[in-house]
Parts: sequence; structure tokens; C-alpha cells
Amino acid sequence: MTQIKDLLGADTVIRADGRAVDELRPIRITRHFTDAPEGSVLIECGSTRVMCTATFTTGVPRWRKDSGEGWVTAEYAMLPRATAERTDRESIRGKVGGRTHEISRLIGRCLRGVVNMKALGENQIQIDCDVLQADGGTRTASITGAYVALVDALRWAEQHKHIRSADRVLKDSVSAVSVGVINGTPMLDLPYIEDSQAMTDMNVAMTGSGEFIEIQGTAEHRPFNRTELNALLDLAEKGNKELQAAQRAALALD
Amino acid sequence: MTQIKDLLGADTVIRADGRAVDELRPIRITRHFTDAPEGSVLIECGSTRVMCTATFTTGVPRWRKDSGEGWVTAEYAMLPRATAERTDRESIRGKVGGRTHEISRLIGRCLRGVVNMKALGENQIQIDCDVLQADGGTRTASITGAYVALVDALRWAEQHKHIRSADRVLKDSVSAVSVGVINGTPMLDLPYIEDSQAMTDMNVAMTGSGEFIEIQGTAEHRPFNRTELNALLDLAEKGNKELQAAQRAALALD
Amino acid sequence: MTQIKDLLGADTVIRADGRAVDELRPIRITRHFTDAPEGSVLIECGSTRVMCTATFTTGVPRWRKDSGEGWVTAEYAMLPRATAERTDRESIRGKVGGRTHEISRLIGRCLRGVVNMKALGENQIQIDCDVLQADGGTRTASITGAYVALVDALRWAEQHKHIRSADRVLKDSVSAVSVGVINGTPMLDLPYIEDSQAMTDMNVAMTGSGEFIEIQGTAEHRPFNRTELNALLDLAEKGNKELQAAQRAALALD
Amino acid sequence: MTQIKDLLGADTVIRADGRAVDELRPIRITRHFTDAPEGSVLIECGSTRVMCTATFTTGVPRWRKDSGEGWVTAEYAMLPRATAERTDRESIRGKVGGRTHEISRLIGRCLRGVVNMKALGENQIQIDCDVLQADGGTRTASITGAYVALVDALRWAEQHKHIRSADRVLKDSVSAVSVGVINGTPMLDLPYIEDSQAMTDMNVAMTGSGEFIEIQGTAEHRPFNRTELNALLDLAEKGNKELQAAQRAALALD
Amino acid sequence: MTQIKDLLGADTVIRADGRAVDELRPIRITRHFTDAPEGSVLIECGSTRVMCTATFTTGVPRWRKDSGEGWVTAEYAMLPRATAERTDRESIRGKVGGRTHEISRLIGRCLRGVVNMKALGENQIQIDCDVLQADGGTRTASITGAYVALVDALRWAEQHKHIRSADRVLKDSVSAVSVGVINGTPMLDLPYIEDSQAMTDMNVAMTGSGEFIEIQGTAEHRPFNRTELNALLDLAEKGNKELQAAQRAALALD
Amino acid sequence: MTQIKDLLGADTVIRADGRAVDELRPIRITRHFTDAPEGSVLIECGSTRVMCTATFTTGVPRWRKDSGEGWVTAEYAMLPRATAERTDRESIRGKVGGRTHEISRLIGRCLRGVVNMKALGENQIQIDCDVLQADGGTRTASITGAYVALVDALRWAEQHKHIRSADRVLKDSVSAVSVGVINGTPMLDLPYIEDSQAMTDMNVAMTGSGEFIEIQGTAEHRPFNRTELNALLDLAEKGNKELQAAQRAALALD
Repeated sequence: MTQIKDLLGADTVIRADGRAVDELRPIRITRHFTDAPEGSVLIECGSTRVMCTATFTTGVPRWRKDSGEGWVTAEYAMLPRATAERTDRESIRGKVGGRTHEISRLIGRCLRGVVNMKALGENQIQIDCDVLQADGGTRTASITGAYVALVDALRWAEQHKHIRSADRVLKDSVSAVSVGVINGTPMLDLPYIEDSQAMTDMNVAMTGSGEFIEIQGTAEHRPFNRTELNALLDLAEKGNKELQAAQRAALALD
Repeated sequence: MTQIKDLLGADTVIRADGRAVDELRPIRITRHFTDAPEGSVLIECGSTRVMCTATFTTGVPRWRKDSGEGWVTAEYAMLPRATAERTDRESIRGKVGGRTHEISRLIGRCLRGVVNMKALGENQIQIDCDVLQADGGTRTASITGAYVALVDALRWAEQHKHIRSADRVLKDSVSAVSVGVINGTPMLDLPYIEDSQAMTDMNVAMTGSGEFIEIQGTAEHRPFNRTELNALLDLAEKGNKELQAAQRAALALD
Repeated sequence: MTQIKDLLGADTVIRADGRAVDELRPIRITRHFTDAPEGSVLIECGSTRVMCTATFTTGVPRWRKDSGEGWVTAEYAMLPRATAERTDRESIRGKVGGRTHEISRLIGRCLRGVVNMKALGENQIQIDCDVLQADGGTRTASITGAYVALVDALRWAEQHKHIRSADRVLKDSVSAVSVGVINGTPMLDLPYIEDSQAMTDMNVAMTGSGEFIEIQGTAEHRPFNRTELNALLDLAEKGNKELQAAQRAALALD
Repeated sequence: MTQIKDLLGADTVIRADGRAVDELRPIRITRHFTDAPEGSVLIECGSTRVMCTATFTTGVPRWRKDSGEGWVTAEYAMLPRATAERTDRESIRGKVGGRTHEISRLIGRCLRGVVNMKALGENQIQIDCDVLQADGGTRTASITGAYVALVDALRWAEQHKHIRSADRVLKDSVSAVSVGVINGTPMLDLPYIEDSQAMTDMNVAMTGSGEFIEIQGTAEHRPFNRTELNALLDLAEKGNKELQAAQRAALALD
Repeated sequence: MTQIKDLLGADTVIRADGRAVDELRPIRITRHFTDAPEGSVLIECGSTRVMCTATFTTGVPRWRKDSGEGWVTAEYAMLPRATAERTDRESIRGKVGGRTHEISRLIGRCLRGVVNMKALGENQIQIDCDVLQADGGTRTASITGAYVALVDALRWAEQHKHIRSADRVLKDSVSAVSVGVINGTPMLDLPYIEDSQAMTDMNVAMTGSGEFIEIQGTAEHRPFNRTELNALLDLAEKGNKELQAAQRAALALD
Repeated sequence: MTQIKDLLGADTVIRADGRAVDELRPIRITRHFTDAPEGSVLIECGSTRVMCTATFTTGVPRWRKDSGEGWVTAEYAMLPRATAERTDRESIRGKVGGRTHEISRLIGRCLRGVVNMKALGENQIQIDCDVLQADGGTRTASITGAYVALVDALRWAEQHKHIRSADRVLKDSVSAVSVGVINGTPMLDLPYIEDSQAMTDMNVAMTGSGEFIEIQGTAEHRPFNRTELNALLDLAEKGNKELQAAQRAALALD
């Protein structure tokens, strides 16, 4: 990481919460957070808290019938007071907003990226990520937590003989983290206060083997060049490795 | 309580979870469960877990303007996997279901029943009750927890000079509990397994001074008579007294 | 009734419409109000007028298939100018309001409370209650009128050999009435003007044999105690007996 | 009418209900059908029964503000069991159907066609036509009945000094009737049984002075030629004259 | 046409775009406008431009199953900036407006009026008319263009052996044109500027053999009499003949 | 580009449409495609055809008032038969789908990324991208075409004195292109047939000065590594340079 800091002059940057620019917020993953779901995880990344559940059901949607393959979907939502100001419920407004749709689809793609649909067979897993408290990085925390819930649901399905082997369904693990450029400095894992100042903002989902599943970089406020991109990807790689260690530690606990 | 048991032959009844017929499930009230809301409470009644937040905002809806009085509303919702089988999100379905509407309105009426709207002034409190895990009694747990969140929001408003005094706004406290007749025996605080067998099912909201705010008794399966009603109300009175003790204990902790 | 009046000092109360506190408004039940439905009733309670139809269809919703049992549902709605000010149509607004949902569910539960679903067999009855003119008590008038429409629909089904016997399907009759405390005085059958002043407001549905199907008491404005509750239930019992006499008289006319 | 019959060989036609081909069904117009609306009319054309209310409110929609002119709109709906088979409520379906939209717009145009918007001033009249029983011709009955409700609302507004003169607002009267070609024979005022057999179907709204406000002819099943069109228009002219006599008679009753 | 002009004094009228009162705007019909649909037509009537596609699918909606007959439906929509001011998308508003519904239904009826449903067999044709640019007469242009797309879809279906013969399915051709009375003068094919001034406005759909499929005449601003009606119908007949020549010319090009 | 081909062994790859792996499809940009909008562009990339309009309105949404800054939004939609199989209209379904939301938001962010909101002043530009024909890359074609429409709208606004200078509002130009890995070979500008086979799929929006505005890479089917990412970004850079040349050429034509 040193050359990045040199390159961008970030080595003297002090973040509001005292972290180094390449340091994750404290992460806590609680499995079996609630009793009913096949997988139920509370993930906390700093003050961001997301409840991720995985529902395993036999059978697939109609368009997938007789394909021999399974399906994985995800839905993301925020509780009304996850945020500093109350947000109206989308159920009351009668429609799902664009941001919610965008994030739900992102989570679904990331998880499908590590699932072998043939090995899953004609079964469906529905991921629900509900944000209890939002302080930046809710979509990446959702992906990281949802993976753990997914594993638990697959283990449950293996125990209940719905699938032969959870391990065969999982092609790899997946986690995600946000990175961004704040005042010219690339930083890892942005809380809300930094996120809202970021000129460039990127969410990076990676597999346990270090490859990319999703890269979503946005530069609404100032475009970024190839050098900055590479610095951000380096940070994301470091962050995802640490998140995957936390996932493994949590999953080893049983 | 003895004469009720005699009357109805319930003294030998053993409940699935080992409780006596007039015994509440273990109750736990956690204040300041999340950081952003003015009041944020996690209430646990046995396995039922509801997150109740209270949002204080200055100003009132348009129809209430220039009345000198405030307003209190409530919204109730269940997370998709609060239940044994996953429930579709109402946001995705594009409409709020009848049960959700009914319960939201009930919670709102109960809280308004103990609030002095003149003392609140032209301010609004929005209660959100989101069920993380459902095992019967989610609407009554919501009321009991929401009252604590309401008090915290009013204390916050007093500290921030939005109201003169939280105590003057509160005319009384309120809690609620379910009672029902299972196989002919009146019982207190029904978990899901009992609730689904109940011939008669009643939710009773009471003030700290022992009066009724709401009585909702339903006998879809077998009508009930005046004697049974009185037995149920006695149980509800006992349960509410204990819930109010738990509310007071939680609110004394600051 | 005398001891109630003594207790509460109500014996000198004069109501705006000249009724005694324990007196129903004039009730009129017109059967065969329209031609198409299997049961079609216009019920008038004072100025409140509700058209109640019962639609009998063979077969049940999917979740009820192969249960050998039938199903009864209800929908309630108000015409836009049933009220002093015009209310926007829920069809135009694109969603059903909370009050409508709450009342529809109440009516459905009350009717199901007197129907033997096994005897009904796999048939469905849909009740529609449309308020032509609203002057308080529209939900209780709906229940009282809907019962008569239900009986007509069952008689039709018996004649058309869809069920063996209407009498076997009906476990009992059901009617409902509102009661409330106005300025400290319990009163029976509140028109709109009284309803809006009521400190406590209760809707009580009872069977012909004098038992309770639903009790919904609300005390948004002032909580009520056990003594007041008992006085209200006495009034409701008297009112429901008279409503059931009117139902019997109407049903004897064929 | 004779030459039409000659032309088309209809003089020996016997209609199911015994009417002549150029004969209206019995018409009954009941004013002040309900108490709350400024105009409230029940119109019965044979078995078709529509409740038409007119709501007068001061002020106009925003887009009409400061124009010095008023506005008239209409909404049409069918109660679920107005028809032989129950129709789902549009409120429950969450959207208004095409047929409902089409008819609501037709009624609105017809009434606006006889209203002097300048003389109405910045006031609004909302017409609601709710079909209690449908046996063909519900849209034309709605127009005919709505006109009477409109007059009553304007008379009310004159009495309450919201407008200077009801007569000045009304440029003319309006009524409407359906005509159609059944098995080659043009007929007046089709009940449902004829309507569903009609090869050509036309709704004609005319003013009291005998001019056209709306002509809507549809020939989904067999196109029609100029001769048939003229025969249908002659029938419609005769029918509308009689309907206008009924309107005048009803309005003279006060 | 001369006697009409004499009658109404229109022979000296000069229209804004220099046309005679009985003259169509330039018409252009482009077949195979896009590649995917079975029929795809761009129709231009003056500045009005509508893209009409016809989708042929085997099978019919459930209510039509086992009837041996096909079905034809149509949907009409305007792109947001087809008009001088941007119109909000109906998808974003969450509901289809009344005007859209009305026009979609009109187009569907006109096309069904020339289709032999038995010869179509259990196949469905969905017409989509999307207005790229609106300058009056979008609904009539849609009908005229949709007919050509329909023919192409039927020819495709014949080639692909889904139907025996396109010609047998088509009972006739259909086109439509608007006519109206502007300042007392009947005119053919109104652009937006004239349409908005029209006192009477009529859309007339006719078959190739000169009969009427739909007549929709509206006189919101001034009623019209039989003489004017006849003048308008004469104009419509002339216009439709010319439009049908254009249809034939386009269809001959293959 | 040669070293990429060497690296990935792609130099012998033949694409279905005969293009080289780093070759764009033929691009055509038609300005002033329709008359009403301030900017109206038809962009064709191979068979993909998108109509992009830009609507300039003075004033901004309420949340932006008194900020001195403008706003730019975008909406994307597909006509029903843009695709091989007809897609139901989102207006009829009553809700906007996730994909539509996601793309609309992407287009909006890309355009805002090159607009100086202060120089725009309190004015709003609404971009509408409607896909007439879809053959892959509709979202990137929308961005590329929308930029040209945006420029035209700003030029219009400058001419009409709503803004001082179009050039000052534009910080840079923007275009976008898709790239992807097909059977291990990185390729530029994927048509539908390739897109559906892509293991990795990336949309890259770049400014005229060669920086990134948005990178969205998705690897639902096979994760990608840093080397592949770099190859894809090289291709995207080449493609965007060519697209920007086409934009400049089109904008020079006036």
C-alpha cells in the first residue's frame, strides 16, 4: 500500500474516526441472529448494521422449471429510521425506489456469481437484507453478510437432504467493500460522512480467490483516471481479504 | 386468579413452554437499541422481537396546522423472515395489507390515548414497529415497546427544548397483552402455537392506572360469554401490570 | 337497564334525536333490494343506509382447496358522497385505506363466526357492504345487514342444491351495534354527531344466543374502567337482541 | 318512425320484454335520494339503476385557478354485484380499468357540453355515478340522471349564493340513450341481453334543443352504413326527447 | 363536396398550413420500420408520427381458450416529449390515464372490426402504437398505421404456417381520420392547432368498402346538428378513401 | 491493442458480424429527430436504435430551490417490441422494473458528471431515452446519444437566454460503451447475441478528456482478474474515443 500513499500524498491523512486510509471499520458477524430463517446473520461494519436472512425453498420460479438449475435472488430495504432523518416506507408509497432496486439487483448478482446453479438443483434461495442502522456501506455490508447467511442456508439444506453438498454449490466466497477518493485521497470503507464527500465512490465485490465479481465506480462529482482506479482497487483488495477472514472466522464457529 | 381457574377448571393445565396460565413470557426491553432515532427500543416477549422507534419532528401534518396540538401516528411491519415461512414484502407487492393496516391503526390509537396533544404542541411523533421475529403477540409487544420509545423521544424533545416537559405530555403509561381461551382455558400472553389454536383471542391495552384503552376480542372459532370475558380481562389486567413494571424498570435505567 | 342509569346519572339525558340512551334508531331491512345477487339487502339504521350483497360461488380460493371446507369474506366501501364532504374513491387513489381494510376484516370475522365451514362445503360466499349514506354505525349496520344477505344466499344455494341445508351451515345468527360514552353517559347506537363526541366507542357483535363474536372498544379520548365497560356491554346486549328480532322478522317475510 | 321500420323490415319484430323497437324502458327519476349531496338522484331505466350525486365545492383545481371559470368532472363505477357475476373492486385491484375511465370521461364531456363555465365561476361540480344494478345502458342512464343531479346542485348553489343563477349556468339540458342494430333491426334503449347481441351499438347524447353532444358508435361485429346510421340517429332522437320530458317532470316536482 | 362548402360558407377558408378544408395532410407509411416485430410500421400524417407494431403469438388469453377463435388487442402510448411540453411517463406515475385507456380501446375495437376471429384461430395479435411526435390525429393515425402492421403480421403468420391465409382473416381494411368544425367550417384531418380550436371533433373509422366501424363525435364546446354531422361524415369518407389508397400502395410494395 | 490480443489469444477470433474484437458497430447520430424537444437525437449503434430527447425547463425541483444550481435527470424505457419477444409495458404493470430504474439512474449520473450545475443555474434538464430497437448496448447508446441531445438543449437555452453559455455549463463530453469477455476474449461493443454469452460484462462511461465517469463491471458467470479488467478498460478507451469523434462530428453539422 505504501506506494499508493506516496503517489497520492495520503500518508498524513487523519480520518474523522481515527482510522488509517486503508483500515476497515470494526466488523462483527453474528450468525443465527433470528431463529426462523435457514440462514440469519447480523453484520455490523462500524455503526452500519444489516440483518441478512437466507430462505431456502425447494422448487424454482416458473421460468426456471425443468432446467435442473436453482436460483438465487435478493431484496434490500432500509427500516424507516435506519437513517438520521426518517425515510417513508416504500410499502406505504406503493412503489420500490430506484436505489432499492439497484442495490437488490447488485446483491443478487454477487451471490449468484459464486453459486453453482446445477449443484443447487431446482431449489431457490431468497436473500433479505434489512438495514437496521445505516452509516455508509450498507450495500457492501449486505453482500458480505448475505454470503454468510447463504452458507448457513446451504448447510441447513445439506442436513435436510435438499442438496447433496453445500460445498459443491459454493464455487467460491464473496465479500464487498466500498472505496472512494476523499479530497484527493483514496480511502477504504467509507462511513456516511466520508461517502457524502467522496468525489469518486466505488463498490467492489471480490471472491475469496481474489477475483472481481462486481465493480461499480461512480464519479458524479469528479472523473477519475487509471492511476486512481488502480489505487482504489488495491484498497478494495486489501479490505475484501480482511472481510473474508471475518467471514471464515464466523463460519468456523459452529 | 384462583377463582378463575376453579371456574374454568384450568388449574391443572400445562402449557407447552411450561408457563402457568397466568404467566407472562420473559420480557426484555432494550433502550437506545439504535443511535439515530429519538427513541429506539428492542422489546422481546419470549421469542417475539420488535424494534420500536419514535421519530420526533417539529411541525404537524397540514390538516392539524394552527390547532396548537400535536399528533402521534404508528406504522407496523414484519420483516420477510420474521415468520416460519417467508412473507412477500408489501413494498414489492405495491400495497399494504389489511392486517398491517389494522395493527398500525391500533398502535397509533393506544399511544394517542395517553398523550396530551395540547402539551405536545405542534409537534409530531411517528412510531415505527418492525417485527424482527414473530412468535405471537407482535401487536401487543409493539404497543408495550412503543410506549418506551415514545417516552425517550419526549425526553429528548424536552432536552432539546421542543417541548416544555415530557411528563406533562404523558397523561399515563400504556401497555398491551394478548389473552385467549385455549381448549376452554383462559390464558395470558399467547405464543404463536397457542394463538393459532385459540377459540377466542383478545388484545387488551391498559393504562398504568388500570383503565382500558383498547379491547379487541375476536371469536371467529367459538363465541364467548360474559364469564369468559371477565376471566380474560382479569388475566389481561395482571399481565399489563407486570409489563408496566418492566417498562418502569427500563425507563429508570438512564 | 335502570341500575346502569342510576350508576351513571344518565336517566335525565336527552339525546339530540329525542331517543332514550338505550334506544335503537329506527331500523329497516329490505330483502331482494337488487336482482342479481344471491342475497341482496338494504339495511337502514336511522339515516345510515348500507347495501349488503352476498355472492355465492362454488369452489374456494386455492389455499382452501381439498379441505372440504368453505370460506366467507367481506369487503366494505363507502360511496364518495355517503358523507357530508366528498371522499376520494379508493380506486382512483389506487389503494385501499386502513379504515376500509379494518372494517372489511371485522365484517368477515363476524360472519365466519356463525358459519359452519364443513357444512358449507367447498363453496365461497363474498359479502359486499357498500354504504350509500353514512350517519354513524356503518360497520355495525353492515354486519347486521350482511347476515340477512348471507341467509338469503344460503337459502338460494340450498334451492339450487349447492348445499344440503342452509340451516346446518348457520351455527347461529349475528348482529352488531355500537355503544359509547358521551359526556360520561353510556349510550346505545350512536349517530355520527354522537360518535364524534364519544370519549369511548365500542362495537359489539353478538350471536342470537347472546354470546360475543367481536368486541372492539377504543378509548382514544378517555380510558374507561370495568364499570363503564359493563354498562356498555349491557346496552349492546339489549340493542343486539332488538336487531336480531328485526333480522328474524325480515327473514320470515318470504 | 314508420319509414325506418319499412326500410329495415323491423315492423314485425317482437323484443324479449315486449317493447316496440322504438320504445324506451320504463324510466323513473328519484331526486333527493340521499341527504348529504347537493344533488342526489336515483335513476332507473328498466332494471338498470344508477345513483348519481353532484358535489358542489367552491374553488377549482390548480390548473384552472384565476381563469374565472368553473369545472365539471365525473366518475363512474359499478358496485361489485351490479352484474350477474361479481366483478372485483377496482380499489382492491389497485387500478381503474379502461372501461371505467372511458365512461367517466364520456359523462364529464356530456355535462360540460351544457354548462357555461364562466357563469359557474370558480366553482367545481363533481358528478359520481354508481351503478347499483346493471342491465345495459348504464352509461347513458348515468348521463341522464347526472344532469338532474347537476341541476339540483346548481339550485342549491344559487340558494347558498355561491352562483348568481342556476339557469344562467345551464346552456341547455342533456340526456343520452343507447341504440343498436339487433339482427338487422335498429332498436332503442338496449337492455343487457340485446346489447350483447348487437352488431352495432351507439350511445347518443343530445341537448334539449335537439343537437348532438356525443355520438359514439361502435361496430365491432359488423360495420354499418349511412342508412343504418340515420335510422339509429332517428331512434336516438325520439328516445332522448322522451328522456328529457322525464327530466323536466322530475325537476318540476319541488 | 361543393354543396357542403356552400351550405357552411367554407369555400373561402384558408387553413394555417395552406390546405383546402377537405385535404389530408401528407401521409407516409414506412413498413418494416424495425426488425423484430412481425409487423412494424411508421406512419406519418403531417408532423404526427406513430410507430405501430403488431406482435403475433400463438395461443390466446385464458378466457378465450378452446373457443377456436383468436384475439386482437391494442395499446397506445405517447413518448414523453411527443408533445410541446413534456408529459410524465405513465409507468412512473404508476397508472395508465383515462385518455390512454380510451384510445387503446378504440384502436383495438377498430382492428377487431375487420378481423375474422375464426379464421385467425387460437392466435393473438397485440398492436402497440407509440407516438413519437404528436400534432393532432394521433389516434386515427394509429388505426391507419396499425392496420398495415396487422396485415404484415398476418402475412408473416401465413408464411410461418400459423394461419392458413392472411386474406381469409381479413374481412376488410380499416383506416381512420379526424374531422371537426372550426369556426363553423367542417374540416378534414385536424392538426393540433385546429383540434384545440374545434367546437366539434369527430374521429371516424371506416372499412375499405365504405362502411363505419367507429364514429366518435364530441361537442364539448358547441353541440352540432344533423346537417353538420352529415358534412363531417362526407369529409371523413373522402379522407378515409385516400388513406386506404395509401395503405394499399404501401402494402403493394413488397 | 496488439499486446491485448497476444495476451488473450484473441487475434484469430472472428465475430458473428465480421467485426474485429476492438471494432465498434457502425454508429449514426441524427440530430433534430423530432421537432418539439429542445434536444432530440436518434442514435443507432448497429441495430440498436434509441431516441434521446432533452427537455429544458426553467426552475428546479423543490429540494433544489434557492441553491443557485440546476439539475439533470434521466429516464430510460424500452418500447414493447424493441425486443425479439414483446415485453409488457411498465405503465400497464403499474410499476417500473429494477432494470429500468438501474439504467435510468446510470444515465443521469453520467450526464451530471459533465455538467457544471452552478453554470446551469436554477434550470432543469430531463433526458428521455426510449429504445425503439434493442440489440445490446442500449444503456451505453443512451448515454452517448443523450449527451448530444443535452448539448442541443443547452444551445437552445443559450439562444433563448436561459443560460449565459452552453460551453460554460459543459465541463466535458461523455460517451459510453460496453465491453465484455466472450469465451475468454475481451471484445468491444457487444450486440445482444454476444452480450448474452458474455462471462463478464462491463459498461464504461468516459469523458472526452479520457477519464472515467462510471465503470460497471459484472461477472455473474465467471469472475475476472486484474489483467482482464485492464484489457477491457483499454478496449473501452478505444471505443469511447471513436464514439466521441462521432459526437463531435454530429455536433459540428449545424
